[in-house]
Amino acid sequence: MTLWGGRFTQAPDAVAWDLNASIKIDQRLALEDVQCSQAWARAITATGVLTIEECETIRVGLERIAYEFTQKKFVFQKSDEDIHTAVERRLGELIGPLAGKLHTGRSRNDQVATDFRVWLMKAVPALSGQITVLQTTLVQLAEKHIHTLMPGYTHLQRAQPITLAHWFLSFFWPLQRDRERLADAAKRIAVMPLGCGALAGTTLAVDRVRLAADLGFTQASPNSLDSVSDRDFAAEFLFTAAMCAVHLSKLAETVVLFSSAEFGYFELSDAYSTGSSLMPQKKNPDVFELARGKTGTLIGSLTGLLTTLKGLPSAYDKDLQEDKEPVITAYDTLMVLLPVLAGALETMNIHNDRMAAAIDDGMMTTDLSDYLVARGVPFRQAHAILGHAIRLAAEKKVSLRLLPLEDWQTLGPFDADLYAFFDPQHSVAMRRCLGGTAPEAVQLQLKEAIALLPE
Amino acid sequence: MTLWGGRFTQAPDAVAWDLNASIKIDQRLALEDVQCSQAWARAITATGVLTIEECETIRVGLERIAYEFTQKKFVFQKSDEDIHTAVERRLGELIGPLAGKLHTGRSRNDQVATDFRVWLMKAVPALSGQITVLQTTLVQLAEKHIHTLMPGYTHLQRAQPITLAHWFLSFFWPLQRDRERLADAAKRIAVMPLGCGALAGTTLAVDRVRLAADLGFTQASPNSLDSVSDRDFAAEFLFTAAMCAVHLSKLAETVVLFSSAEFGYFELSDAYSTGSSLMPQKKNPDVFELARGKTGTLIGSLTGLLTTLKGLPSAYDKDLQEDKEPVITAYDTLMVLLPVLAGALETMNIHNDRMAAAIDDGMMTTDLSDYLVARGVPFRQAHAILGHAIRLAAEKKVSLRLLPLEDWQTLGPFDADLYAFFDPQHSVAMRRCLGGTAPEAVQLQLKEAIALLPE
Amino acid sequence: MTLWGGRFTQAPDAVAWDLNASIKIDQRLALEDVQCSQAWARAITATGVLTIEECETIRVGLERIAYEFTQKKFVFQKSDEDIHTAVERRLGELIGPLAGKLHTGRSRNDQVATDFRVWLMKAVPALSGQITVLQTTLVQLAEKHIHTLMPGYTHLQRAQPITLAHWFLSFFWPLQRDRERLADAAKRIAVMPLGCGALAGTTLAVDRVRLAADLGFTQASPNSLDSVSDRDFAAEFLFTAAMCAVHLSKLAETVVLFSSAEFGYFELSDAYSTGSSLMPQKKNPDVFELARGKTGTLIGSLTGLLTTLKGLPSAYDKDLQEDKEPVITAYDTLMVLLPVLAGALETMNIHNDRMAAAIDDGMMTTDLSDYLVARGVPFRQAHAILGHAIRLAAEKKVSLRLLPLEDWQTLGPFDADLYAFFDPQHSVAMRRCLGGTAPEAVQLQLKEAIALLPE
Amino acid sequence: MTLWGGRFTQAPDAVAWDLNASIKIDQRLALEDVQCSQAWARAITATGVLTIEECETIRVGLERIAYEFTQKKFVFQKSDEDIHTAVERRLGELIGPLAGKLHTGRSRNDQVATDFRVWLMKAVPALSGQITVLQTTLVQLAEKHIHTLMPGYTHLQRAQPITLAHWFLSFFWPLQRDRERLADAAKRIAVMPLGCGALAGTTLAVDRVRLAADLGFTQASPNSLDSVSDRDFAAEFLFTAAMCAVHLSKLAETVVLFSSAEFGYFELSDAYSTGSSLMPQKKNPDVFELARGKTGTLIGSLTGLLTTLKGLPSAYDKDLQEDKEPVITAYDTLMVLLPVLAGALETMNIHNDRMAAAIDDGMMTTDLSDYLVARGVPFRQAHAILGHAIRLAAEKKVSLRLLPLEDWQTLGPFDADLYAFFDPQHSVAMRRCLGGTAPEAVQLQLKEAIALLPE
Repeated sequence: MTLWGGRFTQAPDAVAWDLNASIKIDQRLALEDVQCSQAWARAITATGVLTIEECETIRVGLERIAYEFTQKKFVFQKSDEDIHTAVERRLGELIGPLAGKLHTGRSRNDQVATDFRVWLMKAVPALSGQITVLQTTLVQLAEKHIHTLMPGYTHLQRAQPITLAHWFLSFFWPLQRDRERLADAAKRIAVMPLGCGALAGTTLAVDRVRLAADLGFTQASPNSLDSVSDRDFAAEFLFTAAMCAVHLSKLAETVVLFSSAEFGYFELSDAYSTGSSLMPQKKNPDVFELARGKTGTLIGSLTGLLTTLKGLPSAYDKDLQEDKEPVITAYDTLMVLLPVLAGALETMNIHNDRMAAAIDDGMMTTDLSDYLVARGVPFRQAHAILGHAIRLAAEKKVSLRLLPLEDWQTLGPFDADLYAFFDPQHSVAMRRCLGGTAPEAVQLQLKEAIALLPE
Repeated sequence: MTLWGGRFTQAPDAVAWDLNASIKIDQRLALEDVQCSQAWARAITATGVLTIEECETIRVGLERIAYEFTQKKFVFQKSDEDIHTAVERRLGELIGPLAGKLHTGRSRNDQVATDFRVWLMKAVPALSGQITVLQTTLVQLAEKHIHTLMPGYTHLQRAQPITLAHWFLSFFWPLQRDRERLADAAKRIAVMPLGCGALAGTTLAVDRVRLAADLGFTQASPNSLDSVSDRDFAAEFLFTAAMCAVHLSKLAETVVLFSSAEFGYFELSDAYSTGSSLMPQKKNPDVFELARGKTGTLIGSLTGLLTTLKGLPSAYDKDLQEDKEPVITAYDTLMVLLPVLAGALETMNIHNDRMAAAIDDGMMTTDLSDYLVARGVPFRQAHAILGHAIRLAAEKKVSLRLLPLEDWQTLGPFDADLYAFFDPQHSVAMRRCLGGTAPEAVQLQLKEAIALLPE
Repeated sequence: MTLWGGRFTQAPDAVAWDLNASIKIDQRLALEDVQCSQAWARAITATGVLTIEECETIRVGLERIAYEFTQKKFVFQKSDEDIHTAVERRLGELIGPLAGKLHTGRSRNDQVATDFRVWLMKAVPALSGQITVLQTTLVQLAEKHIHTLMPGYTHLQRAQPITLAHWFLSFFWPLQRDRERLADAAKRIAVMPLGCGALAGTTLAVDRVRLAADLGFTQASPNSLDSVSDRDFAAEFLFTAAMCAVHLSKLAETVVLFSSAEFGYFELSDAYSTGSSLMPQKKNPDVFELARGKTGTLIGSLTGLLTTLKGLPSAYDKDLQEDKEPVITAYDTLMVLLPVLAGALETMNIHNDRMAAAIDDGMMTTDLSDYLVARGVPFRQAHAILGHAIRLAAEKKVSLRLLPLEDWQTLGPFDADLYAFFDPQHSVAMRRCLGGTAPEAVQLQLKEAIALLPE
Repeated sequence: MTLWGGRFTQAPDAVAWDLNASIKIDQRLALEDVQCSQAWARAITATGVLTIEECETIRVGLERIAYEFTQKKFVFQKSDEDIHTAVERRLGELIGPLAGKLHTGRSRNDQVATDFRVWLMKAVPALSGQITVLQTTLVQLAEKHIHTLMPGYTHLQRAQPITLAHWFLSFFWPLQRDRERLADAAKRIAVMPLGCGALAGTTLAVDRVRLAADLGFTQASPNSLDSVSDRDFAAEFLFTAAMCAVHLSKLAETVVLFSSAEFGYFELSDAYSTGSSLMPQKKNPDVFELARGKTGTLIGSLTGLLTTLKGLPSAYDKDLQEDKEPVITAYDTLMVLLPVLAGALETMNIHNDRMAAAIDDGMMTTDLSDYLVARGVPFRQAHAILGHAIRLAAEKKVSLRLLPLEDWQTLGPFDADLYAFFDPQHSVAMRRCLGGTAPEAVQLQLKEAIALLPE
């Protein structure tokens, strides 16, 4: 059964049919299709197209179909072009010709856009919830490591000592922005296309505002032509997903680094590592590598959908059928990645000693510049003086803190108190400004972070 | 002069220097760099690093530099690695060694991120303003064409009659979403990195909340490591720009189509067309083609930045230097495209007669289905009946409205009143549901649209 | 069973396991995995690791597994992490502990790269074959339409008359370039990784040159580190696929246009169209729209893989597991699109009359410029003269050929023979230069095209 | 001056003009435009359009223009829409109305495509040359380090010892593939569009085969419609450039890693490092980070062009104007990156001791598996035995080589000779298979590599 065969004299070509059919992916929208059809039945009952009894018969039939889907008992047929056709076909089997009335005044164009948005209205909070799982893990780890010191890096060069709590929280905030972006995207998802018909609006006197509320939308779309072709919401979701993946990729990159023998800061648990089929000694951070690798795929999905949307000429073009696969795949990917990364972080061993040992004297030179600045040396000159100190220490092959005071004094207005600056605790403690790495500042940061998590 | 040469014994390689230098693009941030430096001077004066007199001297020097930039009198030197170096070098020339104090407690890492955000805090409303220019044009055209009829298309096949006003407004709403996305992005742009230093936070007791307010930010960033590496705001801006370009590309595609001889609905004015160097009769819709073509470029820029961000390991990596060129280019592109498209739409001729003539009888068959539905035929059966009517008319080689009543009656419960349905005015008038194409509904839509424009 | 559990004390986390497992996609490589394992068994038999009898036992066991795959009787188990594990596990069930010897001297790193390349060595000629199917259709259509005239367009404006054969062939050559690119890619696919081990090369004295020949490769890879991480061939295949899709998208765009009521040049057969669930009169060119839409997806897949590859640090990183899905999907997509488009083109009706009627006088002005040039007028001046003639005709509201000779003569050195130039047959006949649209030139072009097709 | 104003009654809108003008980027094709115009003059002289004297006058005029370009004395005017217009305008100033004859029989559509291809025919070998510069550096470094040992990594975990020469050469081969791809792309670049006119072919009896040879093309394009719109060559060049950048990004990523304090294998020279404006001790590998970052931009450029090309409807659409900027920028980027990276590699210090010290006992377990296999243990069992040995050593907190023989013997058929396997020299020496890391195999590999370099 197709929903459109009336004027056609020839059957569709078999391969073209397969190309055309979207059922493989849009069956993910099965329950949403049922839900929207039930709401539509109610809406057109109010206009007199269905009697209350007919509406009830349809409702019960659709309920049965939903049950078949949730029980995985629904049997698709080769002729089911898409989920809408499948549901309508099955409804006909269950309740007879009355099923044919359900499509009155609507089109698959407004129907599919509505189903998809309803699906996303559930997906967005679910994804946001998985993001908070990872955020919670980061917060818990930060709470444990407010005083743990480690080297901070820029350009992957040791730069300044930081606290591990600060490092964990540096991945909390990007995820918080992801949640904010999801919330913003949700506003634009919650606009209902149903009632736009194929392109020009339905001729039925449907109360679209009420229908929208019935389905959980905040608004009915203001322009039918735009509404049946608008896939901004899908692209925006994909952008948000890709951005979130980029954040995970940065976390992943660093954990992979920190789990190397050379860094040795982290050691993943067996449950979240994999071995080598050839090399018995290996313990590989596969889940983090996959998070990084899948980021490429998600960026590609965003690119793909935007490219598909470029230059489409009509209210609805079949090109739009390419919209669901990338969105659903991106969702599935993140829904798995987020809890796995949280689990891997939670269960890994952290080698505080290795991190502490990696903090070297050179990382305190900014502080010594500040020391000079406090003694009236302009910053640029102070910076140069420390540069010379480093060269001197290198020539003498000693660590900076072993350079004798007389050497320091040939370079600038130093006193014996300079040596106190080589204590990394001192270094981090000085960065107590809002957003800084000092334990004192991190405590405040943590409080702010926790307040953003759901209870 | 570099800001970092102290410990280096060798001069930079010349080609490597060119590669490294970002001055070609970041000079676009010159005024923002001055603005942020002035605010920083005030902030560190409050901590005692500068005296009030020193702060004033710096302010005046920076004012002079701003003047040189706006007057295009600022002379860059080969050694100016980036805009921050250029400004600091020039400040030194103007006010002497005191200039060296300005960099106390900050780093180019927090500085460039702050400059860039300040630039975007100006760019976003400017771009939003240009979007309203095009929206206003669309509204004005819609106001003139509430009763103008044209064919509506899906799959580029004639589908149902619509009003031209509805068509123009179908491009208003996507632009409105673009403005909303820009407004949402603006919230995340308005978070200040200054005071984060290179990565770990400044050691000065700077009041970052006050500094943020001074620069027009709504918030100081909560985590220094995240803050110096966060380029979400740039990616989000690029996504919004690419999405906006996709909208323009769809408008462009349709205008190109409608300006073809075959459609003949629109005729561009000479001022917004170009000719052919070979074919004297040609009048080409170049500006619309460029809008469509540049959409590809903008999607590529978004892809590029996200790809650059993927998997970066440290708080700050030099890879981030690739962030400004795509953002500034995307902004420049849209700032030109939007008013040009508005101008081209405003000045084009619209051939109402061609559009009216293109509405054929087949486009009213949905309405005739509704007619049957009103007479108790289930929708699916009604759809099939009309399919047969079309085949019958095709076999008889007549237009549907010329099919005699007896033919209709062999197919379904038709009466003579069916012929009234071939009036396209009747067709559009029936779609008076919220968001529909009926003049009555479009009046309401217009009112809603106008309310969203700034006065 | 994992192939690596020895040193691990904890079972893998269930969700992490799912994330990690690649079996859903890499089971597509099942037969290639068997084929490569058989070749490996032969190769290590030559080194003495296996006896000839053991080799034969393994061969027979693998043959049985291949049979199970082709008969779809192979039963995967939850613990089958990837296709290599599944095959090795099953081999153990069939032949006992001897199966454990097969993995001697190889790693999944070289194994998967080899399987994938073997798969592509079959996929490339198969895809090339489907391209020739579409090319053949284009050639056949061109043969029928050497003298059929139609308007040629630039900027979607009517430009000059062309022959329909020339138009069909304009899609032949891009496909020919696609086949050339595939052939070039094939050279780089045919380099064998097997024997590279995990990264450093196998310790067995395997004759890799002979092994390569055994598997149909032209070469054994020269550097093991590069070889286990090299996915250039996958990216190059994806680029070629995306480029091919871009070509299909241009064909699709034009067919969609030409199938519109406004152009009316083509009419798709029922077998390759779809109807509307709402509008009984619609006949939609869905397959062409899908070709255009899926182009976005393929461009996204290419982007995705390149992004995944960016910045990978080691010889083998798990990120590489993202390589197969986009390649296999791109292949599947094109293998369906190409024959469907060929079928749709073959079966469509072509309305020669509509095309002929769309050729207007303005399209011959370039020829009239040439006429003036032949009479000594510099080209630029001739171009301007014709521009004025067009304006004059527009003012007089007549077609150019109805402009009286005296009018022409006020503009330039025209004689009565100018009117012959309004015959489009004359216009195309003049373009007999190599590559031109004249039937004479197209005959030669066709001959060249046919020579490139396999017999 | 525009080349097309004749029929237009209104001047172009100023902003639209700027949008439309391509002169900023296509002036890079100035010399190619002159070169192609000279060839065209010769070609149409042969058809009698120009006299030999006229041809000579034009030649001299164009020569003068070329001189002005190379001397940077050419003065562009606001009205120069593109490089073709600029050259033709200037030629008119130099030689009078005769300049107007030069455009006879050609169009900017075939002209720009030809100029661009001529430009690329020079760019490709130049780029290939820069690739060989980096390849040569890699070969030279490999020659010095055939016996230098380092850890080889997979998943960034230490895997097996390798030679540094092998590591350097692992970046040689990807670049070799890039050069091969460039050579393949060159074949498709060398197809001449000139003589295709605007779309349908020129009416002049130009000998296109001879003209092609005159300009260094191997072939004249076979179909004019395809030829004026074909930008495959630009996309293919961009793909090749992006792929090359991906290779550089992987090299860059590893050098950044190896230059970290934690790895400490490499130390960049001052000439190729940059310092921090805040932290005097820093020495940042900026050039490598830029190589990695710019890879994102290049991938974005490829995406952008492919997206622009998707779905274009006509022989020539103005969207194609977006083709030059990404290609020229990609070229410029690589032409700087390649020699800079070569210089940075050449001048860096290599710490052999740090690399040797990083080879730990665990990396030899694969060899010990082989040891067991040689003693008849099936590989999978051997792998498991070594896994247990590792756990045992970890429990005893000793390195593997310090595990007493009796412990080994509880696990499998070990003898005292097992201890010889902990010598990394022994490990690499065993991988002497083609493509393996053994010095012996690397010598052969080097020879093969050197043979591929130009003398």
